Amino acid sequence: MSTAPVSSAVPTLDEDLEDAAASRTGPGEVPPGVRRARAWLSRVIEPGSVDFWRFVDDAGPVEAVRRLRARRAPERITVLVGSRVDDDRTVDDLQRATRAGARLVVPEDDEWPGYPLHSLTLATSEEPEDFRHQEDRTRSPVPPVGLWVRGNGRLDDVVDRSVAIVGSRASTAYGEHVAGEMAAGLGERGWTVLSGGAFGIDAAAHRGALAVGGTTVAVLACGVDRVYPAAHGALFSRIAESGLIVSELPPGCAPLRHRFLVRNRLIAGLTRGTVVVEAAARSGAQATAKRARRLGKQVMVVPGPVTSAMSVGCHELLRDTESGAQLVASAAHVIDAVGGLGVDLAGAAERPATPRDGLSDLALRVLDACPVRAGVPPERLASIAGCDVLEVLRVLPALEVAGLVQWTGTGWRVAPAPRKKATPSR
Amino acid sequence: MSTAPVSSAVPTLDEDLEDAAASRTGPGEVPPGVRRARAWLSRVIEPGSVDFWRFVDDAGPVEAVRRLRARRAPERITVLVGSRVDDDRTVDDLQRATRAGARLVVPEDDEWPGYPLHSLTLATSEEPEDFRHQEDRTRSPVPPVGLWVRGNGRLDDVVDRSVAIVGSRASTAYGEHVAGEMAAGLGERGWTVLSGGAFGIDAAAHRGALAVGGTTVAVLACGVDRVYPAAHGALFSRIAESGLIVSELPPGCAPLRHRFLVRNRLIAGLTRGTVVVEAAARSGAQATAKRARRLGKQVMVVPGPVTSAMSVGCHELLRDTESGAQLVASAAHVIDAVGGLGVDLAGAAERPATPRDGLSDLALRVLDACPVRAGVPPERLASIAGCDVLEVLRVLPALEVAGLVQWTGTGWRVAPAPRKKATPSR
Repeated sequence: MSTAPVSSAVPTLDEDLEDAAASRTGPGEVPPGVRRARAWLSRVIEPGSVDFWRFVDDAGPVEAVRRLRARRAPERITVLVGSRVDDDRTVDDLQRATRAGARLVVPEDDEWPGYPLHSLTLATSEEPEDFRHQEDRTRSPVPPVGLWVRGNGRLDDVVDRSVAIVGSRASTAYGEHVAGEMAAGLGERGWTVLSGGAFGIDAAAHRGALAVGGTTVAVLACGVDRVYPAAHGALFSRIAESGLIVSELPPGCAPLRHRFLVRNRLIAGLTRGTVVVEAAARSGAQATAKRARRLGKQVMVVPGPVTSAMSVGCHELLRDTESGAQLVASAAHVIDAVGGLGVDLAGAAERPATPRDGLSDLALRVLDACPVRAGVPPERLASIAGCDVLEVLRVLPALEVAGLVQWTGTGWRVAPAPRKKATPSR
Repeated sequence: MSTAPVSSAVPTLDEDLEDAAASRTGPGEVPPGVRRARAWLSRVIEPGSVDFWRFVDDAGPVEAVRRLRARRAPERITVLVGSRVDDDRTVDDLQRATRAGARLVVPEDDEWPGYPLHSLTLATSEEPEDFRHQEDRTRSPVPPVGLWVRGNGRLDDVVDRSVAIVGSRASTAYGEHVAGEMAAGLGERGWTVLSGGAFGIDAAAHRGALAVGGTTVAVLACGVDRVYPAAHGALFSRIAESGLIVSELPPGCAPLRHRFLVRNRLIAGLTRGTVVVEAAARSGAQATAKRARRLGKQVMVVPGPVTSAMSVGCHELLRDTESGAQLVASAAHVIDAVGGLGVDLAGAAERPATPRDGLSDLALRVLDACPVRAGVPPERLASIAGCDVLEVLRVLPALEVAGLVQWTGTGWRVAPAPRKKATPSR
């Protein structure tokens, strides 16, 4: 399949890349070369490398792919791609996504959930320069190069007010009951329930949300066109009808063991908080909680009978004062913890106030185009944001005054958030 | 019964009081007049009045009774005693206690648990001067004037390493199971389990400790010769065989409703911490926890299924960050929270290090004789401690250097503990 011949009507990857690097597109339009560059990156690199993400962030996706294919990238980056550097499965991957009712959403898209995922960008900026000291792939907080999305909703809208409910696959009837009730309560109040699509607590959470007509999102550790576990075909179809199936891996990718750990950062990153419903002793619950906390997200834990092995991990979390975990027993408790003050007490489905509120579409696009580390010139921002360089120069002062962007001396970048409040989403 | 004729061989109350006020007794002996004065106070006054306790603390028990009976006490103190001022049921009460296998333990006794109860003295010292602004009886932290004790163990030894396990009378099988297991685990490790002798969690805790041959103490809201609830006759007998039944109320007193609330301060005060096992929403659990915390004692809470109404109060406590409540799921967790560092990890049954360690018996008696508010002269200390005034003068400098006592300008008193760490018992 990777060698499927490309129809003559379709430009080659290199042609699209050249067009994207040279040309400009109208506001709101993402150049085909940009999406194709990210589709290529999504295919050739296993997610989670801080070093690779910085290479792409610094160069921009189009230039990153061109450098890799022209052997102009640093050796330690090239080695990560290996022999796949000469492959181009982008047309196939994008077509295969379309057949599965899916698309590739990229950071340059309007619907990119830049605000919740900014937590990952910020956490990555705290990683050391030297790649040998960076977190390994299963623990690193790297943002995705793009997200393959199956379903109809706008990704940013769907995850805007979302909470993750996660827990053991070997759940008990108690845990499934509580996960289902909590998800239903969140769904009824207009909150999206995000989970990992697995057996046990994950499935109970998805089903609880679906049962009340709520929106639910499954973030998978395999391609969005695959059904894993196989018994969840009907469940995934129902999720995709009203919600979304999301993965950073291109169609067809297999659910390899380490990919679940890598995937978990997206569950934490996309939501305002994570609820752990059942977890065995020394399970991944502590790691999940630590990761969510590092991203500035709320960690919530449902207690259970102390006689249940499936609640031991939950109680460990609640006993660990460092974990920042908060005990929750109901959807109301969850909303208390993650909801916008005032907004959610009133039950209204408004967005909470953020520094981005009130910004024009153009300003938001320019802001999202700014890298978090090395500053880039306005020309580059214009290319990424898909607008005129004069438009960029017009909105930058306002963004600077709002404390959202910063001039580094050589270019513009996102202003670092205050350490104490890494995410203003609560 | 209150008018039972006193045998001619028995001195009258006033004779005993006069002897106690005038005479000295050998070290370790409590003058009969002192015990009788406290028996009288225990009968005529409903426990819990800060004002009354201060009157007794300032005057000493013998002088307090003499002033009351001679109508030389302040009006607002006299009014608390009312018409009972001319009664003397002390001989009857003490004999009735003896018949029930009980005795009156007074602060002047060696076995008085002065160290744990010091938490009450300290908390009382924070009450305002004006009696109209003091906590009411059901919430005040006043120390008892004496403790009626049924059973054979030394009170101070039995409660030295003790934890309270309390909870709902309307408990579930889950709560009773957990209370019983936890009490058994504590009993096996040499810890005393204290509770209130009620149905439900209390009974499960007592039975759990008894089942492993552990020591358990029931602190009642009625006389120690009474059985309430009536179905607990056999249970109380078993408790008294190996442990203790304790009450500040004299024999025969009925379990009036408000007395349970007043009694609760003793459960908190006598132990190093309180474990709440099951509690309904807005039950007394919050008040119990607040009281224990005010006394500087550890508050521990057992979670349960969020679907159980009997765990709602427990989860409320754990969600309330002000409560200081710590989640515990096992006896090991409890011992971690209240045990002496190192000592209990090794499993040995040693006392934790306290400022009192290394003091001679004489020094301890003098220290316990010191009032917490107004200073008293060494002569008074000698009389209370039952030793020579020269001996008092010999140990006071050492106590002062150790930061345990303080010269007020007119007399000696207990040095106030640092606010942050009201009790060093953990």
